[in-house]
Amino acid sequence: MSGLFSPGWAGSAAEEATGDLAFLQALLDAEAALTRAQAAVGLAPSEAAAAVTRAAADATRFDARGIALRAREGGNPVIPLVADLTAAVPADAAPYVHRGATSQDVLDTALMLVAARTLDPLLTDLSRTERALARLASRHRDTVLPGRTLTQHAVPTTFGLKAAGWRSLVLDARDRVAGVRAALPVQLGGAAGTLAAFQAYGSGEPGVPGERGVPGLVAAFARELALVEPLLPWHTLRTPVADLAAALAFTAGALGKAAVDVATLSRTEIGELSEGSGGGSSAMPHKANPVRATLITAAARRAPALAATLLGSLAAEDERPAGAWHAEWEPLRDLLRLAGGAARDAVEMAEGLRVHPDVMREHLDLTGGLIVSERLVAVFTPLLGRARAKRLLGEAARRTRVEGRTLAEVLGEILADFGESLSEEAAPREAAPEEAAPEGVDLAALAALAALCDPIRLSDLTDPTRYTGSAGTLTDRALERR
Amino acid sequence: MSGLFSPGWAGSAAEEATGDLAFLQALLDAEAALTRAQAAVGLAPSEAAAAVTRAAADATRFDARGIALRAREGGNPVIPLVADLTAAVPADAAPYVHRGATSQDVLDTALMLVAARTLDPLLTDLSRTERALARLASRHRDTVLPGRTLTQHAVPTTFGLKAAGWRSLVLDARDRVAGVRAALPVQLGGAAGTLAAFQAYGSGEPGVPGERGVPGLVAAFARELALVEPLLPWHTLRTPVADLAAALAFTAGALGKAAVDVATLSRTEIGELSEGSGGGSSAMPHKANPVRATLITAAARRAPALAATLLGSLAAEDERPAGAWHAEWEPLRDLLRLAGGAARDAVEMAEGLRVHPDVMREHLDLTGGLIVSERLVAVFTPLLGRARAKRLLGEAARRTRVEGRTLAEVLGEILADFGESLSEEAAPREAAPEEAAPEGVDLAALAALAALCDPIRLSDLTDPTRYTGSAGTLTDRALERR
Amino acid sequence: MSGLFSPGWAGSAAEEATGDLAFLQALLDAEAALTRAQAAVGLAPSEAAAAVTRAAADATRFDARGIALRAREGGNPVIPLVADLTAAVPADAAPYVHRGATSQDVLDTALMLVAARTLDPLLTDLSRTERALARLASRHRDTVLPGRTLTQHAVPTTFGLKAAGWRSLVLDARDRVAGVRAALPVQLGGAAGTLAAFQAYGSGEPGVPGERGVPGLVAAFARELALVEPLLPWHTLRTPVADLAAALAFTAGALGKAAVDVATLSRTEIGELSEGSGGGSSAMPHKANPVRATLITAAARRAPALAATLLGSLAAEDERPAGAWHAEWEPLRDLLRLAGGAARDAVEMAEGLRVHPDVMREHLDLTGGLIVSERLVAVFTPLLGRARAKRLLGEAARRTRVEGRTLAEVLGEILADFGESLSEEAAPREAAPEEAAPEGVDLAALAALAALCDPIRLSDLTDPTRYTGSAGTLTDRALERR
Amino acid sequence: MSGLFSPGWAGSAAEEATGDLAFLQALLDAEAALTRAQAAVGLAPSEAAAAVTRAAADATRFDARGIALRAREGGNPVIPLVADLTAAVPADAAPYVHRGATSQDVLDTALMLVAARTLDPLLTDLSRTERALARLASRHRDTVLPGRTLTQHAVPTTFGLKAAGWRSLVLDARDRVAGVRAALPVQLGGAAGTLAAFQAYGSGEPGVPGERGVPGLVAAFARELALVEPLLPWHTLRTPVADLAAALAFTAGALGKAAVDVATLSRTEIGELSEGSGGGSSAMPHKANPVRATLITAAARRAPALAATLLGSLAAEDERPAGAWHAEWEPLRDLLRLAGGAARDAVEMAEGLRVHPDVMREHLDLTGGLIVSERLVAVFTPLLGRARAKRLLGEAARRTRVEGRTLAEVLGEILADFGESLSEEAAPREAAPEEAAPEGVDLAALAALAALCDPIRLSDLTDPTRYTGSAGTLTDRALERR
Repeated sequence: MSGLFSPGWAGSAAEEATGDLAFLQALLDAEAALTRAQAAVGLAPSEAAAAVTRAAADATRFDARGIALRAREGGNPVIPLVADLTAAVPADAAPYVHRGATSQDVLDTALMLVAARTLDPLLTDLSRTERALARLASRHRDTVLPGRTLTQHAVPTTFGLKAAGWRSLVLDARDRVAGVRAALPVQLGGAAGTLAAFQAYGSGEPGVPGERGVPGLVAAFARELALVEPLLPWHTLRTPVADLAAALAFTAGALGKAAVDVATLSRTEIGELSEGSGGGSSAMPHKANPVRATLITAAARRAPALAATLLGSLAAEDERPAGAWHAEWEPLRDLLRLAGGAARDAVEMAEGLRVHPDVMREHLDLTGGLIVSERLVAVFTPLLGRARAKRLLGEAARRTRVEGRTLAEVLGEILADFGESLSEEAAPREAAPEEAAPEGVDLAALAALAALCDPIRLSDLTDPTRYTGSAGTLTDRALERR
Repeated sequence: MSGLFSPGWAGSAAEEATGDLAFLQALLDAEAALTRAQAAVGLAPSEAAAAVTRAAADATRFDARGIALRAREGGNPVIPLVADLTAAVPADAAPYVHRGATSQDVLDTALMLVAARTLDPLLTDLSRTERALARLASRHRDTVLPGRTLTQHAVPTTFGLKAAGWRSLVLDARDRVAGVRAALPVQLGGAAGTLAAFQAYGSGEPGVPGERGVPGLVAAFARELALVEPLLPWHTLRTPVADLAAALAFTAGALGKAAVDVATLSRTEIGELSEGSGGGSSAMPHKANPVRATLITAAARRAPALAATLLGSLAAEDERPAGAWHAEWEPLRDLLRLAGGAARDAVEMAEGLRVHPDVMREHLDLTGGLIVSERLVAVFTPLLGRARAKRLLGEAARRTRVEGRTLAEVLGEILADFGESLSEEAAPREAAPEEAAPEGVDLAALAALAALCDPIRLSDLTDPTRYTGSAGTLTDRALERR
Repeated sequence: MSGLFSPGWAGSAAEEATGDLAFLQALLDAEAALTRAQAAVGLAPSEAAAAVTRAAADATRFDARGIALRAREGGNPVIPLVADLTAAVPADAAPYVHRGATSQDVLDTALMLVAARTLDPLLTDLSRTERALARLASRHRDTVLPGRTLTQHAVPTTFGLKAAGWRSLVLDARDRVAGVRAALPVQLGGAAGTLAAFQAYGSGEPGVPGERGVPGLVAAFARELALVEPLLPWHTLRTPVADLAAALAFTAGALGKAAVDVATLSRTEIGELSEGSGGGSSAMPHKANPVRATLITAAARRAPALAATLLGSLAAEDERPAGAWHAEWEPLRDLLRLAGGAARDAVEMAEGLRVHPDVMREHLDLTGGLIVSERLVAVFTPLLGRARAKRLLGEAARRTRVEGRTLAEVLGEILADFGESLSEEAAPREAAPEEAAPEGVDLAALAALAALCDPIRLSDLTDPTRYTGSAGTLTDRALERR
Repeated sequence: MSGLFSPGWAGSAAEEATGDLAFLQALLDAEAALTRAQAAVGLAPSEAAAAVTRAAADATRFDARGIALRAREGGNPVIPLVADLTAAVPADAAPYVHRGATSQDVLDTALMLVAARTLDPLLTDLSRTERALARLASRHRDTVLPGRTLTQHAVPTTFGLKAAGWRSLVLDARDRVAGVRAALPVQLGGAAGTLAAFQAYGSGEPGVPGERGVPGLVAAFARELALVEPLLPWHTLRTPVADLAAALAFTAGALGKAAVDVATLSRTEIGELSEGSGGGSSAMPHKANPVRATLITAAARRAPALAATLLGSLAAEDERPAGAWHAEWEPLRDLLRLAGGAARDAVEMAEGLRVHPDVMREHLDLTGGLIVSERLVAVFTPLLGRARAKRLLGEAARRTRVEGRTLAEVLGEILADFGESLSEEAAPREAAPEEAAPEGVDLAALAALAALCDPIRLSDLTDPTRYTGSAGTLTDRALERR
């Protein structure tokens, strides 16, 4: 496979760890470990274990394509693989190949091995990403930019807080992935999850079954592969797969949050961010596309559906279902690839991200100061009452937009007029119903209002960089998380 | 790619048509056709078209892996492919490679080509499947088996009707796929869907843009590839992809219906059907698994989620979205493979299916005749009124189950007793409220009831093979559909 | 239900058509129609049909909550509803209520009725939307704005073409919905799809089953409800539900395309569009959120997953599955609501949309003319050869960005210098390998190049409004579609 | 809402906790708690907090429908709710209603409250379910039944192990739900997540912003609602929602595993299990449908797609996305209902489940002993070599099936013949290539083989109840988990 249509994960560690060759090797590793585990508990001669291990050491010696085609007959690749592996070992080791196991034991164990081998570099990439984001958050702790809600400027925020938020999601992803990674189990149950064949083979006397060796077998198998010993065979108790699905889809989505932000803030009209190495266009030499963000976004759009398929396979009938299990293999691999590839792209995106504080600063003025209107509501409401403050600021907003002036200027004029009218009104008050008694303007408020009419004061009040709330302390606090 | 984890489509026509090499060839075919189309409308010399066509004729001459890796930079494989193709043509043809087009023109067109090449054998397999099912339906028009609802025997039905139903779904799938196949369009819009560059190049005078040649260009492109000319460039009007998604997921689900039935009716306890060549098990020589049904079921479990991703990409912003488009490629390929592979398995399943009418017949008696209790309700209600009939049959059902006798025997006894009590009751009737006036037993009913007490009559009435309703005529009618 | 968390469809026609009361009425309508159909073919007295129709005429007379709670026992609401309806009719009509039918006959038919009643206003809203979009496309046929790909300005396009594209998707949705609407079938099969009970009741002689009346029954039932007669009972042949799923998810996605564009182009920094009545914010008086676009987008994000569940239910085992059918009801209702609500919002969005051509025009200059770099590639390549043209334009792009000047100015300078160097070079040419022979500059090209150095000519060449390709003719053509 | 189409959750604790009234109350609880929290940190008078708390105490006093309809304007119900709540408090408390907050603060917090109130009874139901399953597993520790893979009998297992497996999944679900429950956070960030307005209002001096009170505000808010204080506002850091999605879909799937097993084992032909109170059918008095299993299965089929939508909302742009957030509300509610309803049904299913050990025992003989063929492979392979053992057992399996005898009988005959031929062969061995040297038969093996020919020994070896492997000890171990 060339990965022609998979720029998201072509060439990544996840691609290598999940390729057909890697899967074949994982299947062989599982077979070899199973024989060694049997040797460890006395169910097989150590020579056989050594022989199987040698034969299974190099997947390239096997005919993957032939196995794939023969897999059609029984519906899984372990059956033909076992035949080939058996043929590849000396005759006295042959009886110990796959002995007592069922195809699913080997295939599920191989899936967990592949998962482990994909999650390790994925975790490394998540760590690199979070460190790069931590640096961004720290460096831009006080870089102010417009906070945006439903596509519109809301109030100012900081790029530090934004990057700290991205990092927070990456850490959440890391925690979930690391938790799943640490719990990846081997699978061993035999034909229907009772481990019966191991007992049958384990009897000391020919033809007399017993439990010799069986008790420690699963633990030994797990030790051989550095995976976890499960409480029960999980042929149809698919918690490990469902947990992987949830953690990987979470990871893709978590990285997706940063990606959609980067793509948005890279828009030609916005330009507050740009990727370190924007992707070019053959015909349009000026373009610098946010390609890393694009590919991560694509992964985030795909991962949930794949996770849904895996979650759907939890409801698996019997001791091995006719379809639900088979429906897991490719989606699980796809999820490993998507999350692994997205993590690689996230490293590049985060480490290479260029931040343009000057552009952010300019944008804060796009609304002529209206971006801090919330603050003015907070300032005027106690002085004027809710209804009056709202009316006054609504008028100011309207005029700011229409007249193309700054809110500070417009407010100065309005406040001056308003102050006068208030003074007059103060004595013989006849309030509209909605601005009843407690909203009456007292003298202290009037004085405060007068003070606000000062241009410097107004300019200060409408300065977006001075209305970032707790962004700084939130950023600091978020960066303390490790 | 070996297809090691893909027994559902390994070795299938769909695998070949959707492999990386096939995709690469489709990309090259699109590039060559584009140059030829430009030549056809006077935008390129015919020599250049011939040269590009020659260079693009054999995908194996290109380094797919290298293209895949270089695709990461710009996020799609067309950019590096164009570079390599340009290098592969004589210098005087080089300017005409990809001229005026955007990556998406070529990639989308290639996707449609690959779809066309996958759908053709898929349609063939659907036809083979429906013919095999038609034969089954015809042959088993009157083979009676238990109808099952919510896992329980309901009333008898026929295997003919069941197979005709499967076929009906296959025909629905065929109609949907054929409709989509016939409408697969080329993509051609240039950088942002305006075809502007073709105009720029089309001007007769150097540097003076014009519309020369452009009007017929898209039609010529479509003709070259035997695809359809779209009304508009569809870079972000993704109807073709959404329609493919719906038709392919439908196909997988439609085949899935037959598959879950086959799997169910193959259960060891049921055994009314078996696959022609059941998949074996290395450790359990007696097993004959319904492997074809299993693999089809797995496809049916996966296809809807992949379709969901594609339907989700309809909401694609701008003239080319940053992620939604990239999220389409692999799921569309996966869907083509799953549906194509499932259709191949459906052929094998349908053509090889073994039907066991004797087992079906035996199962009809599993409930001792209760499987026709609905019929008895229909017979007794007019005679006894609803409430009485229900009570009588409820009692008969209970005794049939508990005493392990046939419903006919039990009913004979009950009816005898009941007839007597009815005779007595006939005169001084005092009905319970729920069985008021019109449910009173008249003399004609009493006579009819007496007639029913005849054992032969009862045995006839409770014969499951004589209660198949319109199954036969429905089957006939369904088989008339072509 | 108040619809508190459903602003997308609260108060819509779809809400009313899909509410519990509407569903209850549809169930009752199905029951009444079934009795009338039986009367029409001689299986019931016309008095009974009239009585059932009267009793079923008003759903508010029934205890919906009680039915819902009693539905738990058998897993569907038809069982308790039939009990209540039977109790509500005169005793002599009682035997004819639901006679011969199974719960699924009534429930599926009611679902189709509800679908029909929801799709009709939905189609009306799609028509209103497409007309509004047609007006926009027509009015703004030549309004130029930046075409954007991967978030970056690519080449100019027109708002007319964009709106025509939105409309094209709406028409695609309309065609798919109308097709499904016209094919909505009644369901009638009896206990296991054989129509057997109708035969049993249809016999003239008590206790002697026959086919009297059955042949025309389904057709009569369909006529009563103005739905379609299906070829086969479709208890587990779920094409109608799958088709609804595909058409409704398509609709949500098609509208979603326009919505994400509106939301994007409404961004504070972009502001090329605004919704007629932007949603406000209590605390931020300046905000005008694209609320219609937001709610449509939310629907487009949700619909695919719901469709996936319905497509997944195609693989339904037996004559009635234990779960797949039950999993359809709520998702189908949700999809009807989401698509219906989105269509209502689309009408408001399209009819109220405010277009700001001046802002669009300003944005065309944001890149200093680089937005037409593709055109310059087309102009210069024939004159200079690919490599030289690319190098020259790359340099021009760089300087345009860095120096903050227009591309026309920079190009003028570069071309002047370049012309000189070319003149010198013309004689003793020693080209780099990649710009070999055929890219040699001939005298005619040199002359053409010189002509291009004219500032007016350059300014003209770099005028974004003069590089819209076939946008106008494409728009015209698209608007011809009805 | 009557829940007419929702038998899965109608009347459940989850329905009540997630109804519109409950949501409205949760919104009001959040508003009241916010004012109290502000009072606690000095940002509001305690009288105002008390007044708001009183006004918000009873959701039925508010016009939910009116709020729902007015929610359309701004796209969420908090805006009109705040207006109504403000109108409902005394004028001097009015300024403190919702002060400093954004709609999402209140809506998200209410979602978490609703989640908490749904998860608590859900956890109770999971505990009841696992206890019932523990009792079943313990009671049936040694009840043997056929293990089934790909629909076919594989080897024997025990119902104890099966029930212990179901319980294991329920405990996994419990752990995941409990983990999420314990981490449910309040939401508080203000307009764009900076908490700026609280500072603005918190300044002591009119018009002079400050940080007074803000630091402890979020913690106080969390305390008031017994939810968790988040590290950062999570307006677009949707970990809590994604975690809920994963845990709830896991729960539905985990319960779904038991449900599909119960449905399968309840099939008329299998009948090893039956639900305590099977759902009836009006027309078929004998039916006892596995309705609880059916409804749980339906939930398990739906939950993954809903979770996918929520996982997809992780990629939420800006400080509040235009659609991704709005797409969460209904799916999250649906998931809470589905999982909550499924847990209720699981209690009923598990507590009422009837196990039929005699039927299980009968089924073990359905294959005439072939169900233990794996064991015989284990016994014969060491004696005969792999190839010979396989051939011998394949022949025995064939004859067992064809001749309708028991495996023990057939084997007895074959072994007798085989023993003779082996004796002859023992001296001048000429093995086929695949059964080379080490598979040669030695004298000890021959003796062992002879011993096996004893009918009692053979009958013992082929006794399915004596081939359950470690099922018992696995069950014991699984039951130790709490």
